[in-house]
Amino acid sequence: MSILVVGSVAFDTIKTPFGEAKDILGGSTSYFALAASHFTQVNVVAVVGEDFTDRERAAFEGRSIDLAGLEVAPGRTFRWGGEYSFDLNERTTLFTELNVFEKFAPRIPDSYRRSELVFLGNIHPDLQKDVLRQVERPRLVALDTMNYWIERTPNELRRVLPEIDALVINDAEARQLSGEHNLVKAAEAIRRLGPKLLVIKRGEYGVLLFNEDRRFAAPAYPLEDVFDPTGAGDTFAGGFMGYLAQQGDLSDGALRQAIVFGSTLGSFCVEEFGCDRLRSLTRGEIAARFREFKRLTHFEDL
Amino acid sequence: MSILVVGSVAFDTIKTPFGEAKDILGGSTSYFALAASHFTQVNVVAVVGEDFTDRERAAFEGRSIDLAGLEVAPGRTFRWGGEYSFDLNERTTLFTELNVFEKFAPRIPDSYRRSELVFLGNIHPDLQKDVLRQVERPRLVALDTMNYWIERTPNELRRVLPEIDALVINDAEARQLSGEHNLVKAAEAIRRLGPKLLVIKRGEYGVLLFNEDRRFAAPAYPLEDVFDPTGAGDTFAGGFMGYLAQQGDLSDGALRQAIVFGSTLGSFCVEEFGCDRLRSLTRGEIAARFREFKRLTHFEDL
Repeated sequence: MSILVVGSVAFDTIKTPFGEAKDILGGSTSYFALAASHFTQVNVVAVVGEDFTDRERAAFEGRSIDLAGLEVAPGRTFRWGGEYSFDLNERTTLFTELNVFEKFAPRIPDSYRRSELVFLGNIHPDLQKDVLRQVERPRLVALDTMNYWIERTPNELRRVLPEIDALVINDAEARQLSGEHNLVKAAEAIRRLGPKLLVIKRGEYGVLLFNEDRRFAAPAYPLEDVFDPTGAGDTFAGGFMGYLAQQGDLSDGALRQAIVFGSTLGSFCVEEFGCDRLRSLTRGEIAARFREFKRLTHFEDL
Repeated sequence: MSILVVGSVAFDTIKTPFGEAKDILGGSTSYFALAASHFTQVNVVAVVGEDFTDRERAAFEGRSIDLAGLEVAPGRTFRWGGEYSFDLNERTTLFTELNVFEKFAPRIPDSYRRSELVFLGNIHPDLQKDVLRQVERPRLVALDTMNYWIERTPNELRRVLPEIDALVINDAEARQLSGEHNLVKAAEAIRRLGPKLLVIKRGEYGVLLFNEDRRFAAPAYPLEDVFDPTGAGDTFAGGFMGYLAQQGDLSDGALRQAIVFGSTLGSFCVEEFGCDRLRSLTRGEIAARFREFKRLTHFEDL
């Protein structure tokens, strides 16, 4: 099955305690697409400016990534700059230049309309809803959002949630959206807003999946060196959706494995700057780390 | 196999957002012994004052808990008071009265000297070392400590670490002891100080086990209502050691199951005030929740 992803493509400027990089390829869609393309065909809808050259485009080429929906608009590409604290647990945004992303209105090419899985990246909930009007009966729709939309467009967000299957957010966002501190209660409250599936990302502490009354907890892979955490959440989502699409299976068992593949891809992402590690990654490396996750979590039942 | 536990017995006064309790049975040894006694014989060494009555003693009776080593000294029992924040993530100590605990010098009764497993609760590292001089070749010695000893008696602590098998501490303590923020690096540094096994407790995020080059990650059980977090760490240690003693097996597979039994007992502990839930708990409830942990973490390998 193929995946439609709608979101941002950006130039990122990143400072970590281990180095810095200027104007490198970033944005939620870039991370998502590179991760998911290890599993399946990814159809990208995003907008870039005239400064987005063949050099950046090359990062997506030779992969199962369709750029027919990558609009080039007059002006400059979205730019973001951020700096991490010494322990990588805090991130300060140094600048945000929306540029062409400010007027982004996703148009879904005809060839994408039958994508079986849809990932609505972190954009205005009305735009997310508009994407759903342009596609034909996807088998699974997942949505990401952030504190900005939870605070500023709560009604718009609540109107799109009943139309999706899966919400993929972090723990702080789950608490903010539900008004519940306890994550089990937060999950119940969020599922009452619409999504049957809730995936809560907890950074270095792993991921929780709530699938109706079933729950699954996966740890993060214990890494000795984290180089750059940027994009780990979008990479997780790409691995998660990519595996589901590849399998064509949305059972509870497949969802659990998909969470682990998402965690696997996320753990690779942070090993190098930006998208670099996702580009060099091989199928064998992915399978080997999935198996390490199995050894990391396995214990015998009674 | 039997377990020797050395540590504190106290009267706790606890305020949580859900209620308060005055002068209830507490202390690391109480939680540890009640948890471990669901699995095996526990030999207690601690000190109480003359105000420790038959009413408190009754909490341990009718269980596999030997109180021959519970010294009664002139004066009052150790008292601690604490208050939790609305989300239970922060705890403020309201008062600490060491009382008879200030001069505690553990004396191991002859009948305890052949305990196969030893748990050295959170006391001065010189006292922990002194306990080891009084026992005969235990099969496993585990040790707990805290920021107070890491800061004030670093040399004494470093002298006892080579004599133990397992260190059971929380993530903040692991970072402080090793000087490493990254937990994988912290674990390597700590294992170089002596203990072959390192158990890092991460509260609501679960537990990491480092067993030579093998690693195991267990999540915490997702609870809808946490009533009182006091004693969860000591209860975890009691479940962990209790299961190992019951099985008489220190293999990697048994250690993994023991971590899950520890997590299981810890998840029950926080459901009621103080030790109350540990006292009402049944073998069937423990086994049922262990199996829920299995369902919570299970995914199929490739």
